[in-house]
Amino acid sequence: MSLTFLAPVGSALALLFALFLSRRVLKAPEGTDLMKKISLAVRKGANAYLKRQYAGVAIFFAVMFVILMVLALTGFLTLFVPFAFVTGGFFSGLSGFIGMKIATAANARTAHAASNSLNSGLRIAFSSGAVMGFVVVGLGLLDISFWYFFLQWWYSDAAHLTIAAGQAMEEAQIQAITSAMLTFGMGASSMALFARVGGGIFTKAADVGADLVGKVEAGIPEDDPRNPAVIADNVGDNVGDVAGMGADLYESYVGSIISTASLAVAAGLGFEGVTVPMVMAAIGILASIVGTFFVKTKEGASQKNLLSALRRGTWISALIIAVAAFPLIYFELDGQIGFYFAILSGLIAGILIGLTTEYFTSDTYKPTKRLAGMSQTGPATMIIGGLSLGMLSTVLPVIIVGVSVLVSYSVSGGAGGIGDATFNQGLYGVGLSAVGMLSTLGITLATDAYGPVADNAGGIAEMAGLGEEVRNRTDALDSLGNTTAATGKGFAIGSAALTALALIASFVAEVQIRDPNFTFELSLINPPVLIGLFVGGMLPFLFAALTMDAVGRAAQSIVVEVRRQFREIKGLMEGKAEADYASCVDICTKSAQKEMLAPALLAVIAPIIIGVVLGVNGICGMLGGATVSGFILAVMMANSGGAWDNAKKYIESGEYGGKGSDAHKAAVVGDTVGDPFKDTSGPSINILIKLLSMVSIVFASVFLAFHLF
Amino acid sequence: MSLTFLAPVGSALALLFALFLSRRVLKAPEGTDLMKKISLAVRKGANAYLKRQYAGVAIFFAVMFVILMVLALTGFLTLFVPFAFVTGGFFSGLSGFIGMKIATAANARTAHAASNSLNSGLRIAFSSGAVMGFVVVGLGLLDISFWYFFLQWWYSDAAHLTIAAGQAMEEAQIQAITSAMLTFGMGASSMALFARVGGGIFTKAADVGADLVGKVEAGIPEDDPRNPAVIADNVGDNVGDVAGMGADLYESYVGSIISTASLAVAAGLGFEGVTVPMVMAAIGILASIVGTFFVKTKEGASQKNLLSALRRGTWISALIIAVAAFPLIYFELDGQIGFYFAILSGLIAGILIGLTTEYFTSDTYKPTKRLAGMSQTGPATMIIGGLSLGMLSTVLPVIIVGVSVLVSYSVSGGAGGIGDATFNQGLYGVGLSAVGMLSTLGITLATDAYGPVADNAGGIAEMAGLGEEVRNRTDALDSLGNTTAATGKGFAIGSAALTALALIASFVAEVQIRDPNFTFELSLINPPVLIGLFVGGMLPFLFAALTMDAVGRAAQSIVVEVRRQFREIKGLMEGKAEADYASCVDICTKSAQKEMLAPALLAVIAPIIIGVVLGVNGICGMLGGATVSGFILAVMMANSGGAWDNAKKYIESGEYGGKGSDAHKAAVVGDTVGDPFKDTSGPSINILIKLLSMVSIVFASVFLAFHLF
Repeated sequence: MSLTFLAPVGSALALLFALFLSRRVLKAPEGTDLMKKISLAVRKGANAYLKRQYAGVAIFFAVMFVILMVLALTGFLTLFVPFAFVTGGFFSGLSGFIGMKIATAANARTAHAASNSLNSGLRIAFSSGAVMGFVVVGLGLLDISFWYFFLQWWYSDAAHLTIAAGQAMEEAQIQAITSAMLTFGMGASSMALFARVGGGIFTKAADVGADLVGKVEAGIPEDDPRNPAVIADNVGDNVGDVAGMGADLYESYVGSIISTASLAVAAGLGFEGVTVPMVMAAIGILASIVGTFFVKTKEGASQKNLLSALRRGTWISALIIAVAAFPLIYFELDGQIGFYFAILSGLIAGILIGLTTEYFTSDTYKPTKRLAGMSQTGPATMIIGGLSLGMLSTVLPVIIVGVSVLVSYSVSGGAGGIGDATFNQGLYGVGLSAVGMLSTLGITLATDAYGPVADNAGGIAEMAGLGEEVRNRTDALDSLGNTTAATGKGFAIGSAALTALALIASFVAEVQIRDPNFTFELSLINPPVLIGLFVGGMLPFLFAALTMDAVGRAAQSIVVEVRRQFREIKGLMEGKAEADYASCVDICTKSAQKEMLAPALLAVIAPIIIGVVLGVNGICGMLGGATVSGFILAVMMANSGGAWDNAKKYIESGEYGGKGSDAHKAAVVGDTVGDPFKDTSGPSINILIKLLSMVSIVFASVFLAFHLF
Repeated sequence: MSLTFLAPVGSALALLFALFLSRRVLKAPEGTDLMKKISLAVRKGANAYLKRQYAGVAIFFAVMFVILMVLALTGFLTLFVPFAFVTGGFFSGLSGFIGMKIATAANARTAHAASNSLNSGLRIAFSSGAVMGFVVVGLGLLDISFWYFFLQWWYSDAAHLTIAAGQAMEEAQIQAITSAMLTFGMGASSMALFARVGGGIFTKAADVGADLVGKVEAGIPEDDPRNPAVIADNVGDNVGDVAGMGADLYESYVGSIISTASLAVAAGLGFEGVTVPMVMAAIGILASIVGTFFVKTKEGASQKNLLSALRRGTWISALIIAVAAFPLIYFELDGQIGFYFAILSGLIAGILIGLTTEYFTSDTYKPTKRLAGMSQTGPATMIIGGLSLGMLSTVLPVIIVGVSVLVSYSVSGGAGGIGDATFNQGLYGVGLSAVGMLSTLGITLATDAYGPVADNAGGIAEMAGLGEEVRNRTDALDSLGNTTAATGKGFAIGSAALTALALIASFVAEVQIRDPNFTFELSLINPPVLIGLFVGGMLPFLFAALTMDAVGRAAQSIVVEVRRQFREIKGLMEGKAEADYASCVDICTKSAQKEMLAPALLAVIAPIIIGVVLGVNGICGMLGGATVSGFILAVMMANSGGAWDNAKKYIESGEYGGKGSDAHKAAVVGDTVGDPFKDTSGPSINILIKLLSMVSIVFASVFLAFHLF
C-alpha cells in the first residue's frame, strides 16, 4: 500500500492552514497611526532588503545554473540538475519571504494586542510564527512531492534511463530520481546560507551599531526613537531572525528528507524507502496542526502557564508522531520496525538537545546565573566565563548525537562496511532519525519564530510610547521566546549534524553510482582523508571568522552613520527632529550584501578545490572534519551567545546592581560579543556543513574525473 | 654502520653544555640587596610550588604505577611498562625543575646586567634559556638512549621474547623495545600535562588577580611592590612559562622520537628505522650548540640587531641539520633518501608555522595593528576582533601541516592501506618530519625560554626601583621574547599535530602486534569511528573550558585576598607597610593543585571510557577528532591571546591614546581574556592530544579484550 499521496496532501494542508492563520493575524487591528507608521517603515526596510538580497543571490544562482548546465551538457550531470537547483533556491527564498511578510505585518498588531492582555499578544505573535512554520514545511514538502512525482513519471520510461549491466530497472529509476532531488537540496542550502549570513550580518550590524552609539555613548535606552539605527534594528529582526531562519529551516527540513531518500536504494529498500521520509514529514505536519490547537490559555495566565501552553503543543505533536510512525514503518517497510526506533531516537535526541540548550542558556538554571555573577569582576571574566560555558555545553549534545547515531544505526540493522546493504540500512536509519527529529518542525518553528515578532512588537511599543505595562508584556513574550528559541536551536543543530552524516553517506552512494569500480580508502589514517579532516575541521573556524569580521565591519559603518546623525541633525537628541532611519537601513543593506559574499562562496568553492586536490577520499575526510568541528563550534557559539544575552537580562531584572551598574556594563560587553555568535556565525555553520556536502555530491563525478591525489 | 652511539654522546654534550652555561649565568652578580631579597622570594615561592606540585603528581604516578603493574601482571603489558612510565614522568619533571632553578637564579642577574647594557641583559637571559633548552633535549635523549640500550640488551635473549609464528626474531625484538618505550612517553606526557595545566593556572591566576585589583581597581602600575600578588605573579612566570614549558617540550621531543621509532618495524626498516630518529636528535643537539655561538652582537646593538642575532642562531642550526641529515639517511636507511625530504619538509613546516604565528600576533604586521584599532569602539569589538583573528589564523597552519603530511608521506614511498609496509613507510616519514621539526629544539627553546626570565627581570627592576632606563631595556627584552616565543609556539603546535598523527599510526601498529587477526574498520563513516570523531572533537573544547574555569576560580581567590590585604594592612597603599606576598603565593599554589586535577584526569580517563565503549575503531576516531579540533583550537587560542597581548603593548607604545585611554582599557580586557587562552588552555591542548594517544596505546590490549561495540 503506497501512502505517498499523503506527501502532497500534507503539503497542501500545511499551506492552507498557514493561509487560514495569516488571515486571522491580518484581521487584528494595527493600533495607532504612529504604530502603523513605524510598522510601515520596518516593512518597507525589510522589503527593500530582501528585494536587494534576492537580486544579488539571483546572480549567484544564474552563474551556478550556467556551470551546472555545462556539466549537464558534458555528461557529468543529468539535465534536471540545474533546474532542480534553481527550484530549491526559489522555495527556500520564498519561505523566508513569506515568513518576513507575515512577521512585519504582525509586529504592530502584537503590540496593540498586548495592550489588551498578555495572552492576546501571545496569540497574534504565535499565529504569525505558525504561519512561517507551516509555510516552511508546506513549501518544502511541495517541492519534494513535485519533483518526486515528476521524476518518477519521467523515468518510468526506460528510454530516459541509463541502466547498468545486471541492474534492475527500479534501482536505476530510484537512483536517477534521488540524484536529481539532491541537487535541489543544494539550491535550498545555497539560498539558506545567503539568507542566514546576509540577514545575520544585517541584524547584528544594526543591533551592535545601535547599542554601541545609542546605549553606550549617548546613553539613551534601547529602541529609543531618537536612535537613527532603531528602525534598522527592527528590520534586522525580520530579515535575519525571521527570513533567515525560514530559509535555514526549509533547508534543514528538505535536506533531511532527501538525504535519507537517497540512501534507499543502497539500503535495498526500494521506492518505499524513498517515500517513507516524505510520508513521515506529512504525518508530522498533521500532528503539528493538531498541536497548535492545544496552544491556548485562560485570560490572565502567568508566564509559566504560557510556556507550558506552548510546550504542550509541541509535546502533543511529538506524541502523535511517535504513535503514527509505528504503523507507517510497519506497513511501508515490511515490518522492519527497527527503523521506527530510529525515528524515535531522533525525536528524543532533538528534545534532549533542546533541554541541554535551555539548561545552559536560561537564567533559571545555574550556568547562566553563575555567569551573571562573573560580571562583578568586569568584562574580561564575563567573556572568559561565557566562552567556557559555551565550550562546556558542547559535551552533552555531542554525546546525545553520538548515542542517537549508534542507536539508530544499530536498531536499523546496521552492520558491515561500505557497499554492504546492511551498512546502508544502518545509515538510512541515521537519516530517518534526522527526519524524526524535524518532523515536529511545523510547531517547533511556530514557537521559535514568534520570538522576533514579540521583539519587534516591543520596539514598536517603546517607539510609539505605549507605556510601561505594554512594554513589560512584550518583554515577557520576548523572554519566553528566548526559552522556546533554545529548543528550536537544539533541533536545528542536532538535525544538521545527523543530516550532514546522512549526506556524507549519500556522497559515498553517489560516487558508487557514478563509478561502480571505484574503491574507497576512507580509513582515517589514509593521508588524503586525514588532510581532508584537518582542512574540513578548519573551515567552520574560517567561516566564523569571516562572518564575525563582516558583522564588525558592517557595525562600524553604522556607528559612523549614527554618530554623524547625532552630530549633524539639530534637535535630534531633544526629540525635536526626526532621525534619518532610512539611511541606516540602506547602509545595513549594502554592507550585508557586500559582506555575505565571501563566506557564502567559501562554502561552494572549498569543496571543489579540495575535491580536485585530494580526490573523493579527501572530500569525505573534509566532510567529516567540517561536520564534527562545525557542530561543536555551532553549539558553542549559540550557547555562549544565549547565555550572555540572558545573563544580561538577569542583571537587568535587578540582580548584581541592575541596569546601569558596573556589572551590567560588563554584561553588555558579553551580550555584544554574543550577538554575532548566536545570530550570525553559529546558525550559519549549521547550513555550511550541509552545503559542503551538497556541493560535493553534485560535483562528485567531476572529482572522479579530475583529481591530483 | 651504526651511528646509534651518537645518541648518548649528543645527550651528554647537551647536558655538559647546559652545565657550562649555567655556571656562566651563576657567576654574574645578583645586584643590590633588595634585588637579592626579591629574587629569593620568587625562588622560594617557585620551589615551594614545584615541591607541592610534584608531591601531588607523585600520588597520580603511584596510582598509575599500580594500575599498570596489575595490567602487567595479568599479561596485558610487559613488566617494563610501569617502570618506563615512571622514568618518563621523572625526567619530564626534572627538565622543568632545572629550567625553573636556572630561571629564578637568572632573573635578578638579568635585571642587574640590563642596568649595564641591553646586550649584557640579553646574554644572561639567553644563556639561562639555553640551559633549559639543552637540559630538555639532553635529558630527553638520555632517557631514550638508556631505555633503548637496556631493552636491546634484555631482548637480545630470545627467552625474554614472545616470537609469533613465522616472525623473525629481530622483528619481535624491535616490537618489544618500541612498545616499552612508548610507555615512557605516556609518563612524560602525563607529567607535562600536570606541569602545564598546574603552572598555567598558577601563573594566570596570579597575573589576572594582580591586574584586576591592582591595575584596574587600585590604579597602581604593573609590578608595583604594593600589590600583594606581585611576587606570586613573578613566581607564576617561572612555574608556568618556564617549568611548564620545559616539561611540555620534553614531552614533545621525546614523543616525536619514540612514536617514529615505533613505526620502524611496520615500515620494514628494522633497527636502523628505530635509531635514525635518535641520531637525528643527536645531530640536532650538535647543530644547536654550534648555533648558540652565533648569538652575539656588538655592544649598543639595536633591538632589530638582537632579533636577527637570535634568528641567526636558529637558522644556522637548521642549515647544519639540513645538510647533515642527508648522509645520515643515505647511509643508515640504505639510500632511501625520500626520508631525507620528509625531515626537510618538517623543518620547513615548523619555520613556516612560526612565521604565520608571528604574522598574526606581532604588532609589526597588519592583523594585530587592525586589532589594536578595534579597541576604539570598546571591549566588545576588541574581543570579537581577537577571536576572529585567532580563527582566521588557523587556516595557514592547517594547510602547512596538511601539505607537510602529504609531502612527507609521498616522498617516503607511502602507498596502499593499513597493514601494507609501504603505507607504514609513509607514516614513518610523517613521524620523521616531526622529528625534523623538533631537531632544532635546543636552540629554539633557548630563544623561547629566555622570555619569562626577561619578564621577571622587568618585575624585579620595577620593584627594586632600578629606574626608567633599566625597565625600558627589560621591556625591550621581554617584547623581543614575545616575538621569538611565537616561533617557539609554532614548533610546539606543529610538532604536536604531526606527532599525534604518528602516534595514531603507532596505536594501529600496536593493536596489530597485540592481535594480528584484528581487522580494522577505520572508515570514516563506520559509526563507532564517526562517534569517536565527534567525542574526540569535543574533548579539547571540554578541556579548554575546564582549564579556563579553573583559572577564573583561582584568580577569584586571589582577587579576594588582594582586596583583603588592601583593606586590612594599614599603610600598604602609602608604601609604609609591606604586603603579605607569601599568602598570595600560597593561595595560588593551593588553587593550582586543586584545579589541575580535573583537566589532567580527563586526558587519562576519557580514552579509557571511549575505548571500552566504542572499541579500537572508536578510539582511532576519537584520536583523529581530538587531533584535528585540538590542533585548530590550540592555534586559535594561542594566536588570539598573543595578538591581544601585543595589541595592548602597541597601544601602550602611544597609539590610539596610549596608556590610560579608553582604547587601552578595552585592550586590557582583551589581554586578560587572552591570558588563559595563550598560557593555560592553548599550550596544554598540545599535550592533551598526545597524551590521549599515549594512554590509548598503553591500554590497547585492554580495549581489545573488553569493549561494548
